[in-house]
Amino acid sequence: MNAEIISVGTELLLGQIVDTDAAHLSRALADVGIAVYRRSTVGDNRERLLAALRQALEAADIVFTIGGLGPTMDDITRDVLSEATGIPLVRDEAIVEHLREFFRRRGQDVLPSQLRQAMVPASGRALPNPHGTAPGLLFEMPGKLAIAMPGPPGEFLPMLETEVLPLLRERTGGATIRSRVVRVCGLGEARVEDRVKDLMLSDNPTVAPYAKTGEVHLRVTARASSAEEAERMIDPVVEEIRRRLAEYVYAFDDEPLEAAVLRLLREQGRTLAVAESCTGGLLAQRITDIPGSSEAFLGGVVAYSNEAKTALVGVDPALIRTHGAVSEPVALALAEGARDRFGADFGIGITGVAGPGGGTPEKPVGLVWIALADRDDVRAERNQFVGVRRDIRTRATQAALVMLRDRLLHEAKPLAPDG
Amino acid sequence: MNAEIISVGTELLLGQIVDTDAAHLSRALADVGIAVYRRSTVGDNRERLLAALRQALEAADIVFTIGGLGPTMDDITRDVLSEATGIPLVRDEAIVEHLREFFRRRGQDVLPSQLRQAMVPASGRALPNPHGTAPGLLFEMPGKLAIAMPGPPGEFLPMLETEVLPLLRERTGGATIRSRVVRVCGLGEARVEDRVKDLMLSDNPTVAPYAKTGEVHLRVTARASSAEEAERMIDPVVEEIRRRLAEYVYAFDDEPLEAAVLRLLREQGRTLAVAESCTGGLLAQRITDIPGSSEAFLGGVVAYSNEAKTALVGVDPALIRTHGAVSEPVALALAEGARDRFGADFGIGITGVAGPGGGTPEKPVGLVWIALADRDDVRAERNQFVGVRRDIRTRATQAALVMLRDRLLHEAKPLAPDG
Repeated sequence: MNAEIISVGTELLLGQIVDTDAAHLSRALADVGIAVYRRSTVGDNRERLLAALRQALEAADIVFTIGGLGPTMDDITRDVLSEATGIPLVRDEAIVEHLREFFRRRGQDVLPSQLRQAMVPASGRALPNPHGTAPGLLFEMPGKLAIAMPGPPGEFLPMLETEVLPLLRERTGGATIRSRVVRVCGLGEARVEDRVKDLMLSDNPTVAPYAKTGEVHLRVTARASSAEEAERMIDPVVEEIRRRLAEYVYAFDDEPLEAAVLRLLREQGRTLAVAESCTGGLLAQRITDIPGSSEAFLGGVVAYSNEAKTALVGVDPALIRTHGAVSEPVALALAEGARDRFGADFGIGITGVAGPGGGTPEKPVGLVWIALADRDDVRAERNQFVGVRRDIRTRATQAALVMLRDRLLHEAKPLAPDG
Repeated sequence: MNAEIISVGTELLLGQIVDTDAAHLSRALADVGIAVYRRSTVGDNRERLLAALRQALEAADIVFTIGGLGPTMDDITRDVLSEATGIPLVRDEAIVEHLREFFRRRGQDVLPSQLRQAMVPASGRALPNPHGTAPGLLFEMPGKLAIAMPGPPGEFLPMLETEVLPLLRERTGGATIRSRVVRVCGLGEARVEDRVKDLMLSDNPTVAPYAKTGEVHLRVTARASSAEEAERMIDPVVEEIRRRLAEYVYAFDDEPLEAAVLRLLREQGRTLAVAESCTGGLLAQRITDIPGSSEAFLGGVVAYSNEAKTALVGVDPALIRTHGAVSEPVALALAEGARDRFGADFGIGITGVAGPGGGTPEKPVGLVWIALADRDDVRAERNQFVGVRRDIRTRATQAALVMLRDRLLHEAKPLAPDG
C-alpha cells in the first residue's frame, strides 16, 4: 500500500513554520508498512489544492491531508476534498452538539462558521479530536482512502496515535517497514560507498548512505509481513556492513558519536577533560548533552584568550609568543593542561581558526590543531576543515572525538593497568 | 513569477530528517517577491522524480530541487533534471580540476564516481559550492529556469545567499515581500500578544508572533511594488511595537540574544567569563558561535565535577558540602570565581539539575541557580524550568543572557567608571 501526504497552509509555503507533522506522519507510516511516494505542500488556495488532490488520488492508495480543517475562511481542505473525491458532506448532529457544548463551557455561543466543522463525508466518518474543535475526516472510496487531519501538532499527534494508526494497522494487516542505521566515522561518504556498493543494489533490504557533518550513516531498510521477519532480513546485512567497515562503525541507530565515546570511557573506567579554544565549549556541550556524562567527563576550560590559556590551563606564554596560539605546541600544552588541572586520564586540546576573520596565508580559516594526552603521552593532529564557522567548529569536535575513540580502541590494553 | 520546490531524498520521505532547507528557501523566495505555489518531496527514485519535475516544469516559472547532487548512486537529481528539461550534461574541466585539487590536498585520489559532480547543463551553468564538492546547477530554458542545490544545510545556505538570491534578484526586479523580525526576551508569548493584539488585525503589513525557546519573535511582513515601499510600510509598525514592548525588545531580524549581549558588552568596553555546571559549555558555545566574540568573551570553565569547581573556579569545598552543588552559595561562588580567574568585568555562574536523573523533592529536575557577578556585587536567581534535558539547558543559558543584558542596560552608568 502506498500513500501521498499533502500539507495545506500558506504559512508553510512562506517558510514561516517548518512542517514537522509531515515528518512525523512519514515515520509512523513507515512503521506500519505504508510507503510514502510523495509529499506536497500547497497554500490555502482552492484550485491548487484541488489539482494536488486529484493527482494524489490517482497515484496513491491513501491520501493524507494535514491542516486547513478549522473554522476560518482560510480552512478549505474539507470542501476541496469533497470536490476531489466526489463524496458529498453531510451535517453530523452529534458533532454540532459537541461544538455547542464546547463553547457553552467557555461561556460562548457557537459562531455559524464553527458549524462547518460538523460537516462529514457521506461515505466515511469523522475522526474524534479530543484536543480541538475540528474533527479529522475519513473519505472512503472503492480501494482508496483519503484522511484529513488538523495541523496544530497538539491535535495532530494524538489523533495520529489514537485514531489513524489503529485504522491503518487494521487495513494493512501487518506489513511493516523496519530500518536500522549503521553510524560510521573516520571515512568519507564515497569511500564508505565503495566498500558496500554491491549491498546497495539490493531491493529489499535496501542500503542507503547519508552524509552528515564529519560522519556517514548507512540506513538498512526492510519491508516484510512482520517486524520479526524484517529484523531477520536486516541483521545479516548490518553484520556484513560491520565486517567490511570494521572499526569505522562506531554505533547504531540514534547513538551519537559523543555517546559512543562516553560509553567506551565508562567501560574502561577512564575520565576525560578538555581545553577548547576555537570550538569555544562546543565539545564540552556535546559531551554533557548526554545524560550521565558526569561519570566520565570531569569538565573543560574554554580558553578563548591567551591569558586564559596560561592562567587556567598552564600554557607557557613563551610557547604562544614563539609559535602563535594556533600551533602544535599550544595544542599539546592545552591537552596536557586539561588532563593535569582536572586530574583526568585523558586531556583534549583544540586550537584553530574558526573564521570568518583571523585567517592568514600560513594559518588559514579552517586550520585546527587537535591534541590528545593520556597519562604517558601526548600527540597532535593538524586538520584543514572546510565550511562556515559553525561547520568548522562541528568538524573539529567530531575529529577530536574520532581521535579519542581511536585511542580507546587501540591502546586500551597497554595503557590501562588501572582500568 | 512563481516557483515550485522539489526536495529529493528517501530519508525525508521516511521522516528521518525534517526539511529545513525548503522552509529557508520559501522564506528567501518570498523576500525577493517570488510566490511558491507548491512544494514536493520525492524519494531517490528516478521515475517519481521525473514525474514530479515534469509537472513542476509545466506549472512554474522556476523549479528548484534540493538534494541528490552528491557522488553516490543515490544521487540522481542531476541526471533526471537533464532528462526532464531535455538539456544534456557536459563535462566541465575546471570542475574536474577543482575536484582533483580538493582530494589532492587531502592526500587522496578522485574516485570515478566523484567526477559525476563535474557534469553541468549544456544550456546553463554550475553554481560554485565553496563548502562541498557538488556544485549547484542552473538549467536555462526559454522563459523558465531549473535550479538544483545541494541538500546539506552547510552547503545549501551559503549557496542560496551568494549565488541563487543575487541571480533571482537580477531576474525579478519587481514586486517584493519584505519582513522584519522583532526579537523579544523576558516576556511570555501571551503577554507579548496582549500588548500588540490590535496590530495583529492588519492585513498589510501583517504582524505574527512566534514562540521560541525562552523568547518570542514578532514578524512584520509587507507586500509592495518595491523594497523601499515595503520598508516604509514596515517601519512605523516596528516602531510602535518597540514603543509598546520597550526594553523587552532585544534585537531585530537574525541577531540572536547572545549576539545582542555581546554587542552591549563591546559598546561598554567590558568583558565576560562564565563557569558552567549543568549547562556544560552550552553558554560558552552560544557566545563563541558569534564571530568576533573574543573581543568581549575571555573564556569559561565547565566545572562538571565538584573537584573541578574547587580546583578551577575556587569554590570552597565547605560550601558544596553544606549546601550541595546545586545551591545559591555555589552559584554565587562560581560567578565570582569565573570573574576572578579570568580577570573579567562580569562572571556568570550556573548550577542546576538538567535531568533526566538526579532530581530530588527539594531539588527537582529543572531547578537551576544562575548568578551574575560584576566588579562590586554578585546576586543569584532561582529558576525552575520545564522540558527535557536539552530544553532545560537552553532555557538556563537564555535566562543567564537575559540577566546579563538587564544588568548592562540598567547599571551601565553607575558601574562603569572605567568603561
